[in-house]
Amino acid sequence: MNDAVGTLKNSIIKLTEEKKYAALRDVLSTMNSADIAALFEEEIPEETLPLLFRLLPKELAADTFVEMSADQQEMLIKGFSDNELKEVVDELYVDDAVDIVEEMPANVVKRILTQADPEKRRMINNILKYPDDSAGSIMTTEFVELRPHMTVDDAILHIRRGGIDKETINTCFVCKKDRTLIGMVTIKDLILAESETTMEELMEENIISVGTLEDQEAVALAFSKYDFLAMPVVDGEGRLVGIVTVDDVLDVMEQETTEDIEKMAAIVPADKPYLKQSTFDLWKSRIPWLLLLMISATFTGLIISSFEDALSKYVILTAYIPMLMDTGGNSGGQASVTIIRAISLGEIEFRDIFKVIWKEFRVALVCGITLAVCNFAKLMLFDGLELMVALTICLTLVVTVFCAKFVGCTLPLLAKKIGFDPAVMASPFITTIVDAISLLVYFYFSSMLLHI
Amino acid sequence: MNDAVGTLKNSIIKLTEEKKYAALRDVLSTMNSADIAALFEEEIPEETLPLLFRLLPKELAADTFVEMSADQQEMLIKGFSDNELKEVVDELYVDDAVDIVEEMPANVVKRILTQADPEKRRMINNILKYPDDSAGSIMTTEFVELRPHMTVDDAILHIRRGGIDKETINTCFVCKKDRTLIGMVTIKDLILAESETTMEELMEENIISVGTLEDQEAVALAFSKYDFLAMPVVDGEGRLVGIVTVDDVLDVMEQETTEDIEKMAAIVPADKPYLKQSTFDLWKSRIPWLLLLMISATFTGLIISSFEDALSKYVILTAYIPMLMDTGGNSGGQASVTIIRAISLGEIEFRDIFKVIWKEFRVALVCGITLAVCNFAKLMLFDGLELMVALTICLTLVVTVFCAKFVGCTLPLLAKKIGFDPAVMASPFITTIVDAISLLVYFYFSSMLLHI
Repeated sequence: MNDAVGTLKNSIIKLTEEKKYAALRDVLSTMNSADIAALFEEEIPEETLPLLFRLLPKELAADTFVEMSADQQEMLIKGFSDNELKEVVDELYVDDAVDIVEEMPANVVKRILTQADPEKRRMINNILKYPDDSAGSIMTTEFVELRPHMTVDDAILHIRRGGIDKETINTCFVCKKDRTLIGMVTIKDLILAESETTMEELMEENIISVGTLEDQEAVALAFSKYDFLAMPVVDGEGRLVGIVTVDDVLDVMEQETTEDIEKMAAIVPADKPYLKQSTFDLWKSRIPWLLLLMISATFTGLIISSFEDALSKYVILTAYIPMLMDTGGNSGGQASVTIIRAISLGEIEFRDIFKVIWKEFRVALVCGITLAVCNFAKLMLFDGLELMVALTICLTLVVTVFCAKFVGCTLPLLAKKIGFDPAVMASPFITTIVDAISLLVYFYFSSMLLHI
Repeated sequence: MNDAVGTLKNSIIKLTEEKKYAALRDVLSTMNSADIAALFEEEIPEETLPLLFRLLPKELAADTFVEMSADQQEMLIKGFSDNELKEVVDELYVDDAVDIVEEMPANVVKRILTQADPEKRRMINNILKYPDDSAGSIMTTEFVELRPHMTVDDAILHIRRGGIDKETINTCFVCKKDRTLIGMVTIKDLILAESETTMEELMEENIISVGTLEDQEAVALAFSKYDFLAMPVVDGEGRLVGIVTVDDVLDVMEQETTEDIEKMAAIVPADKPYLKQSTFDLWKSRIPWLLLLMISATFTGLIISSFEDALSKYVILTAYIPMLMDTGGNSGGQASVTIIRAISLGEIEFRDIFKVIWKEFRVALVCGITLAVCNFAKLMLFDGLELMVALTICLTLVVTVFCAKFVGCTLPLLAKKIGFDPAVMASPFITTIVDAISLLVYFYFSSMLLHI
């Protein structure tokens, strides 16, 4: 994106080695906090980190601190004097402070809360009480609150007085005295309106809000549906308690998608990025499903065992087991993943189940026939099989694709209905079920057509 | 999120049936454009749609139009008089107009462009020339452009004059006369600054921008890294040609993630949502990989055929083929999906390949041993196998997990390196490779340990 960043990195490492601190400060001041954090993370030896951090201007230091990894944050805090810690904490927005506090050990948390001013401490504690992944846990309590009788001039004056501490002034919220949310005004409305217009006249009254306990995934969906920059969070009585801003929603979307993808691959989601996970972390996320699916595959083995006689008569049948199982697994996986994604985008719900089954039924028909015809040609022309054996294999293929698409499209919807996560019903799980089905069908057709 | 919407829907359907248009207009005016579009999409009979649409106030009508499906947009446009079409087009932001134009047949496009005023037509054509999925294709050309010598008062006056037509005023861009981008100013900066401050003094000079041809996925990553609300798009000479806003980035993220997930499930990505895809559409996206993987599975069959003699001596070995193949597929799938996701989040790159292999090597060791030990216990205690047969199966398991994790973690990185999409190297593809490997290993150990 920006090649200058690469060259900058090299200069900074050189300047650090040559202890040219004045020049270093000047260079760092021109950089973006996200880039500085990335640089600290990758290229800088741990012992020079506190030194470099202290060179940053106050505001940039706080912004950079937010972007750093929890390990580095903890290391820096442990080296900070109380005064230094206070300077950083003062500059943090409340929701960022909460994110940091959640990652720190108890003694560090205590130091942070002691250094925060009482108002900020109250706000941090307030957000900490909401459950993980709820709207409350990702909101910030620093927003611009206006009153209905204020004029545009009043509002702008109000923003100029308090705005520096607010995370965003782009969307302002109009509340009654008891904090009941009654409207929204954007900064664009304020700038473009006549100075005597009151908030009551200007505000958008038809507002979408979420409750504090709403799932963060639902909040993210609403953002992309309604193109919001900030969404109000209200308590049970409709009083405004915080706002969720779009930058946090981008992070939520990324995190929720990663979780979905991991679940679909039979992985128990972990919080940390891949390179930060220890061998034990990775083992913990991967082994439960591997074990469970390995045990389940036993049933498939049992089916094969019980047809040992048939297989020993027509040994050639064994050779097509992997092809049938894989094609079944792939067909089912396609259907389940499509449905899981559509569910998580809010495109389909449980009540669509018959529409979905009917669609998959037709798709299975055309996919099954296409595969069977191609396979039949191959079996007869290249593999030189007997007609009846080829027929057995191709009939199995069609029926397997049918069953696979059916299982693949219904299980995620059923899971959703009974309150399970649909993402778990993806390829690995579906494959195990479809394996067993395809073998049963295979042996059924074998005994019918080949009389074994 | 908002139960009121559900009840509203029922009232609107009733009011339509009773032809109470005045009441309908009042109700619709209180609704959000995204909700109206969803209502039109699902619940309203096609013939009443134009009527309801004409009831909407002008601005809301345009916002709703943007949110509707391409089919419905086309139907409405065909029913519009030239005047009605002009009214809608006038209210559209340029980037939304481009999205609509891209979906329409040629004759409708011609009508839209004829009704657009010349300036808007020029902007639409300008964006249309950028390739799909480039930053240029998702940008808007309606942004606030300031000059370095302007004071805060000048700037606010400038925004009040032209701001109504800009998609966002939250981030403004400072350019030289030749449009070279030199700085950024947020509306927050403007509101909080002294009125005599010039843009030159106020602006942030350290700006991150993208080129017009940059991939939209890279743009989305930059948004979530830098917490932007709008990102400038510049041409080869550094001149500002447009901006990408965060609402479009949310859509891009959703779309790119869906594509990745589909590719990982062996589906050729389609543009439309699931319920809008015809049977033929779904067939087209699913059959290529199914066919390819079915043919590839032939090799696995060949391996089995060539070991027919061994299998007929130890028929029990056949029963464990599905378990070995599935466990291998799942282990490889876990590794590949983890790496694919880490690549698309920018967490790892090709140069990390040895770090990744070493990590997966250790994970494979602990996962393989855990699985083998559990399986060994089961084989001896429940299945009552001979010691050497159980050993054969468990050794195969450990080696298969090793190979699967190795293949799973290297293929996506290699694909990325040679310019392929890593997402294709997910479970279905990995499974096919690992199936063959696991069988080869199985038969190798069988011949070693069981002397067949």
